[in-house]
Amino acid sequence: MKVKVLTNIMNANDQLAERNRELFDKNNILVINIMASPGAGKTSTIMQTIANLRDECNIAVIEGDLASTIDADKIGKEGIDVVQINTGGACHLDANMIENALSDFDLSKIDLLFIENVGNLVCPAGFKLGEDKRVIISSVPEGHDKPHKYPSIFVDADAVILNKYDMAEVFEYDTKDFESTVNGLCPSAPVIKISCKTGEGVSGWIDWLRTELAKKKA
Amino acid sequence: MKVKVLTNIMNANDQLAERNRELFDKNNILVINIMASPGAGKTSTIMQTIANLRDECNIAVIEGDLASTIDADKIGKEGIDVVQINTGGACHLDANMIENALSDFDLSKIDLLFIENVGNLVCPAGFKLGEDKRVIISSVPEGHDKPHKYPSIFVDADAVILNKYDMAEVFEYDTKDFESTVNGLCPSAPVIKISCKTGEGVSGWIDWLRTELAKKKA
Repeated sequence: MKVKVLTNIMNANDQLAERNRELFDKNNILVINIMASPGAGKTSTIMQTIANLRDECNIAVIEGDLASTIDADKIGKEGIDVVQINTGGACHLDANMIENALSDFDLSKIDLLFIENVGNLVCPAGFKLGEDKRVIISSVPEGHDKPHKYPSIFVDADAVILNKYDMAEVFEYDTKDFESTVNGLCPSAPVIKISCKTGEGVSGWIDWLRTELAKKKA
Repeated sequence: MKVKVLTNIMNANDQLAERNRELFDKNNILVINIMASPGAGKTSTIMQTIANLRDECNIAVIEGDLASTIDADKIGKEGIDVVQINTGGACHLDANMIENALSDFDLSKIDLLFIENVGNLVCPAGFKLGEDKRVIISSVPEGHDKPHKYPSIFVDADAVILNKYDMAEVFEYDTKDFESTVNGLCPSAPVIKISCKTGEGVSGWIDWLRTELAKKKA
């Protein structure tokens, strides 16, 4: 009797992610996988982006949460196409969930798709979704030591947003330590300091997105 | 040929947790499993507890992180016995990790053991460690909607700490919504509002611990 050895259980997800990616490429959609701790400001960053870019391109959003439709409701109120994925107990989104969600969109009409992952600084890093870019959001109140403690999610980042930066002084935040650790883990990723509350620094994030949108259309 | 079906992969962890629990009970140690998002204030809460209770009982700490010894170094500087577990990529502590860490302690000399889990509001909930009590820390800057979005970790809480409460006004925090959602998920768990920075409310947490310590010794 022959025993078949399954070498890599991730391959199934990688294959589905590749299929999603082909679909995104065919439709010229820039896809951003947003990952962060709970409450770092993933939805707020997407809301700021919608406010700044909605006249330039068509935006859609996939929201991932264990439970509730709180985030999708916020996005939906802006008149943006949004699908909420409730994972039940699952700690991350996977490519299969994204594939299922895509049937609810008219892909030919989307330029920029945000996938807001489950709030978790560990597990989402291991699951490709078919995205073009991975953006990690860290927030000032979490403390500047997060990249030291959770390096695996920062290693593959294409950009790192540091949100709630208006609170840097109040929380005695060591920006230099944060930036140098991030630079060590992912040297090519810019660190973009913003405050979704005050709008401070958001233009730097929008500029980064505009450049990526132009690259995708080229 | 008979095929053996493994019914529940969690059982192995539950069995080890039970073994840890027997060891803790034999030594009259109150064991608290602290779970929270990254940066909610797990280590700060333990540091405040050490400052308040070190003259009344012997405290020891197990620190869980993907990487680094930042937290263990802080605790160790206080002259408290501490073991750092680095999980590598793993998103939670399990009972086997705890069993291995216990060999570094003289259990007969410990009254109160904190296990600081990996910062993650999802995965640690599924893994018993042998603890007496599960304490969830949420922090004001994360937003009051966290129990809606991550209900599974709140359901089994014995106490819920709301940290960084000195920032409630600045972040326009809806304390009522947080408390009522938590009460719905775990009606018997008190919500203890504290600020590790200012010390505000910490006495409520210390009183809760004193009661649990007395119960354990009874």
